Amino acid sequence: MNFSVTHKDSRTAARAATMTTDHGEIPTPVFMPVGTRASVKSVEPHELKDQQVHIILANTYHLYLKPGNGILEKAGGIHSFMGWDQPLLTDSGGYQVYSLSDLRTITEEGVRFKSHLDGSTLYFTPENVIETQRIIGSDIMMPLDECPPWPAEKHYVEQSAAMTVRWAERARTHLEATTPLYGHSQALFGITQGGTYAHLRKEMTGQLVDLDFDGYSIGGMAVGEPAEEMYRMLELSHTLLPEHKPRYLMGVGTPENILNAIERGVDMFDCVIPTREARNGRVYTRNGYINLRSARYSDDFTPIDEGFDNHVCRHYTRAYIRHLLHVGEILGLKLCTLHNISFFMWLTRSAREQILQGSFSEWKEHFLRQFNAGQQSRT
Amino acid sequence: MNFSVTHKDSRTAARAATMTTDHGEIPTPVFMPVGTRASVKSVEPHELKDQQVHIILANTYHLYLKPGNGILEKAGGIHSFMGWDQPLLTDSGGYQVYSLSDLRTITEEGVRFKSHLDGSTLYFTPENVIETQRIIGSDIMMPLDECPPWPAEKHYVEQSAAMTVRWAERARTHLEATTPLYGHSQALFGITQGGTYAHLRKEMTGQLVDLDFDGYSIGGMAVGEPAEEMYRMLELSHTLLPEHKPRYLMGVGTPENILNAIERGVDMFDCVIPTREARNGRVYTRNGYINLRSARYSDDFTPIDEGFDNHVCRHYTRAYIRHLLHVGEILGLKLCTLHNISFFMWLTRSAREQILQGSFSEWKEHFLRQFNAGQQSRT
Repeated sequence: MNFSVTHKDSRTAARAATMTTDHGEIPTPVFMPVGTRASVKSVEPHELKDQQVHIILANTYHLYLKPGNGILEKAGGIHSFMGWDQPLLTDSGGYQVYSLSDLRTITEEGVRFKSHLDGSTLYFTPENVIETQRIIGSDIMMPLDECPPWPAEKHYVEQSAAMTVRWAERARTHLEATTPLYGHSQALFGITQGGTYAHLRKEMTGQLVDLDFDGYSIGGMAVGEPAEEMYRMLELSHTLLPEHKPRYLMGVGTPENILNAIERGVDMFDCVIPTREARNGRVYTRNGYINLRSARYSDDFTPIDEGFDNHVCRHYTRAYIRHLLHVGEILGLKLCTLHNISFFMWLTRSAREQILQGSFSEWKEHFLRQFNAGQQSRT
Repeated sequence: MNFSVTHKDSRTAARAATMTTDHGEIPTPVFMPVGTRASVKSVEPHELKDQQVHIILANTYHLYLKPGNGILEKAGGIHSFMGWDQPLLTDSGGYQVYSLSDLRTITEEGVRFKSHLDGSTLYFTPENVIETQRIIGSDIMMPLDECPPWPAEKHYVEQSAAMTVRWAERARTHLEATTPLYGHSQALFGITQGGTYAHLRKEMTGQLVDLDFDGYSIGGMAVGEPAEEMYRMLELSHTLLPEHKPRYLMGVGTPENILNAIERGVDMFDCVIPTREARNGRVYTRNGYINLRSARYSDDFTPIDEGFDNHVCRHYTRAYIRHLLHVGEILGLKLCTLHNISFFMWLTRSAREQILQGSFSEWKEHFLRQFNAGQQSRT
């Protein structure tokens, strides 16, 4: 994997770069739609490409449960399985073990837990999570980590973050002992932890950087801490992480979070917001989000965002999509999902363009002012 | 509306024709996917066009309830509302009044019933159903009819069918007293009833033909009667209906039913089979249908129908779609739906091609032999 910084903003830490994988190039900053179980909900791969999606995310935990490694390997990996020929990143499943499964036992060796699907006992180690990701065939892999809740005791976070570093090293060692299965190379990121304790994050980030990963995920954020705490950790991380490696802020976030993180040097994002909220009828516009389930849109024959140039706004009105949601037609969920993905892709693509033009800060302020004002005018 | 018979089969009553509406041409025989509530479930209009869909069906009863006439009129009719610029046919809602609503009271004037959605009392007359269809703006409208169950007493069917003819005449009169709202013309079919009583169907069909409609729907079929009874009524109808008007067999059916009806002179079909069964994982192949929920397909990396040239078979495997259905991903339902629509469109399109080539009977026998043999080999 190659990562080349094209342009650095003169007034902020924002940067535009290009990541190159065997499945294609990824211009950054970039938003990665979430396709947990080898499907970005309700949307086909060719529709993702039409929305200028460059890379999607899938989840090792979910894929390991279903369809399982046997089927994924017979399929020739996830790209072939789901018909997506562009870059794909897998989360390690660590976060899901902690958030979804019951009866976790974490030891230095790994984590034992019960499947949230059938209660069967499973065991993840840094090594077998790499093996599963070899079978999945993702372009970018994540090592198994522990993601503590927020707030958490300093002592616990310290022990946990130190173990996450040791697990990352074991993952790297196992990566080197194995080879890709499908002819394309696979990168491995390190995941920094340390909660919102600055000195812990500094220490653990330093240890991970010494291990020299292909990129760095900033983990343990967006777990309930105030946004200002997150921004403080990003500013710190910016001073610690090597400039020539990609930085991925896991699980973030709202448009405002994303732009503020780009300003602090982050290159990659993933979040369920655009897809999950779409299924509740919340769609994003440059004037804030609106809830299309509301009766106020039942005879509103304008597009979701007037003048926004995407497939959904070109072809459908708020009134039609509201009708679909109102009567429970699946197409309503799909159109909201497709629109929101398109909106988040536009957001990070626009940020990149503005960085390249040297106008990122002004554009960001203008966007957020309009977005928040529109939001407030409706509530 | 113009209807021009291009070719008549020399050995059967099958015919190839072209129907012309202000929204475009419809080559027949044709299958019409069902979009009851202004949406063919999970599929976008441009995807329907890609599957060579020429005309879809919507339902007056459902649209009257939601979104309601006010919104449909403000939208400028259903074509504009849902973004479908090709021909569209509306059923009158008579069948739905009988199958879905409670507390029906049928009188000569019309039918009073309670909405299946909120229990409110509603009243359909031949006149107001035409008015609603003027507001919907369908290219082909159906008059309000009564569709008796099967079996039903001869006396009841006789009274009912006679009233359906009187209602059809009132619908025609009201059609002439009103004008289209959106600049395109709207045709009105007559619906023949009479159950499986040959002399009743003969009498009522004769009366309808005397009233001279733009086309004729063969109603009261596919309500539980043996297929042979239906075929007998189709053969009778063929001798009664004018050759130069389209014939529409409502609510039919399986591939075998459709081909046998084409052989007996039917031009148009609609049925929920391809869309409803898709949502249960049943997909059609030239070797019978299969249920993709079955574990036997979990590592079957062939397309739904090997060598069948459509979007779903070109891009997805049985194993992937089975995975999507298995984990409850909406995309699974969508891919099954899209495939089945494509299959039924292929079926009627192939029938047309074979009629034009003079080889309809041989092709039909060959198709059904292969379809049924494949089916039996799996069960």
